[in-house]
Amino acid sequence: MVAQNKMFLGNYGERWFDFADVLVPLVEFGGLHGYVRLSGSSLGSLLGISQQAAARRLIKAAEAGFVNKRQSVFGFEYMLSDKAKNQLSGFLSTFSKRPEPKRIDAKVFSGVGEGRFFLELRGYRKQFEQIYDFKPYPGTLNLKAKQSVLDLFKPFPTKIVNGFRTGGRTYGLVLSYKARIHYNGQNQECVAVFPQISRYGDETVEVIAPTSLRKKLGLADGDIVELEPILD
Amino acid sequence: MVAQNKMFLGNYGERWFDFADVLVPLVEFGGLHGYVRLSGSSLGSLLGISQQAAARRLIKAAEAGFVNKRQSVFGFEYMLSDKAKNQLSGFLSTFSKRPEPKRIDAKVFSGVGEGRFFLELRGYRKQFEQIYDFKPYPGTLNLKAKQSVLDLFKPFPTKIVNGFRTGGRTYGLVLSYKARIHYNGQNQECVAVFPQISRYGDETVEVIAPTSLRKKLGLADGDIVELEPILD
Repeated sequence: MVAQNKMFLGNYGERWFDFADVLVPLVEFGGLHGYVRLSGSSLGSLLGISQQAAARRLIKAAEAGFVNKRQSVFGFEYMLSDKAKNQLSGFLSTFSKRPEPKRIDAKVFSGVGEGRFFLELRGYRKQFEQIYDFKPYPGTLNLKAKQSVLDLFKPFPTKIVNGFRTGGRTYGLVLSYKARIHYNGQNQECVAVFPQISRYGDETVEVIAPTSLRKKLGLADGDIVELEPILD
Repeated sequence: MVAQNKMFLGNYGERWFDFADVLVPLVEFGGLHGYVRLSGSSLGSLLGISQQAAARRLIKAAEAGFVNKRQSVFGFEYMLSDKAKNQLSGFLSTFSKRPEPKRIDAKVFSGVGEGRFFLELRGYRKQFEQIYDFKPYPGTLNLKAKQSVLDLFKPFPTKIVNGFRTGGRTYGLVLSYKARIHYNGQNQECVAVFPQISRYGDETVEVIAPTSLRKKLGLADGDIVELEPILD
């Protein structure tokens, strides 16, 4: 499988919050449940921008599929599209989730050695050392769960490792979270990482630690460990 | 009391959605519950804008009091401020409210004749006639409740009447909603209006109808009527 650039926030222009200036007023004025009569003039006055700028924003939001538009004898009317409602519902459920310590089962598997390669890159290694105050063992433990591991970690505050460019190649940013791994009555603090450019999906996570987790915990491919996010 | 310009969406620069590009990513990355390590570089990469533009947005959001910022040995960290959390919670509760028909008690009182004056202005009259397909009786019935009438109407889709400028004076926009007024076993369809420029607060509403509501329903100052929003 080829590495893909994961869009943690979705693609620009297809994310509701790129059109928040239009969508939030529409929600505030009842546009979830029916058509709101709204003109560039009134939107501009409400937003404190020009009538022309407001009209352009309404058109952009309609073109991006976030608002449905209809024309009646008394002017244009708008309401939120299902796409907008779905994205907003997703955001609001994120907003309502609390970071609860919860363990997830995940299976150990062998990667293709990329983890080691990336951890040896100065651009990443220095940041991990500074953020987590340890020298990472040069290799990652790959874990695969039956559900999204990223969803479990998302309510916890991430430490984002910056991407960089070196040797003519671009290395993407990495979401990282403090975690603990449990196996066979032992446990070890570690860091769960979700690279923006990755060949794996959200049900997979790479784990780094000061020592080799395979050696320390006695792990082999196929073993099932428990992983839990922890607050600082 | 002097007429005030009501900010239906709050003042520009003090509304969370003016900073949605920063606040939504912060929520998505756990910034409700702790500090997220976030740089202009990583935010820019996530938003598809330049590092410099992203850094400016973070600064603006911090200056406006929507994010708390701290510096550690490994870079800047941000989390949502209480102001941002409160505004977002308010939006979330608006989003979750459904338009349920519900009546509110309100007391009839005499205004200072402004309602008639405004309804006789062509800029408003033409719009009301087009939207609601009747010629409004030239005068409004003023009602005062013990709670916010606007909050009751807000989940219903509004028909916003545009503001305009004439004779060197600016007339603000008006939120209008279809409604029904009940009194003494009778009822009458009407339109509830909330002018942006008004001497009254949200617990007061002006009601317009094709005929004089005082005459048709036999109302006098001090009488208590019931008002309910209705869907089209």
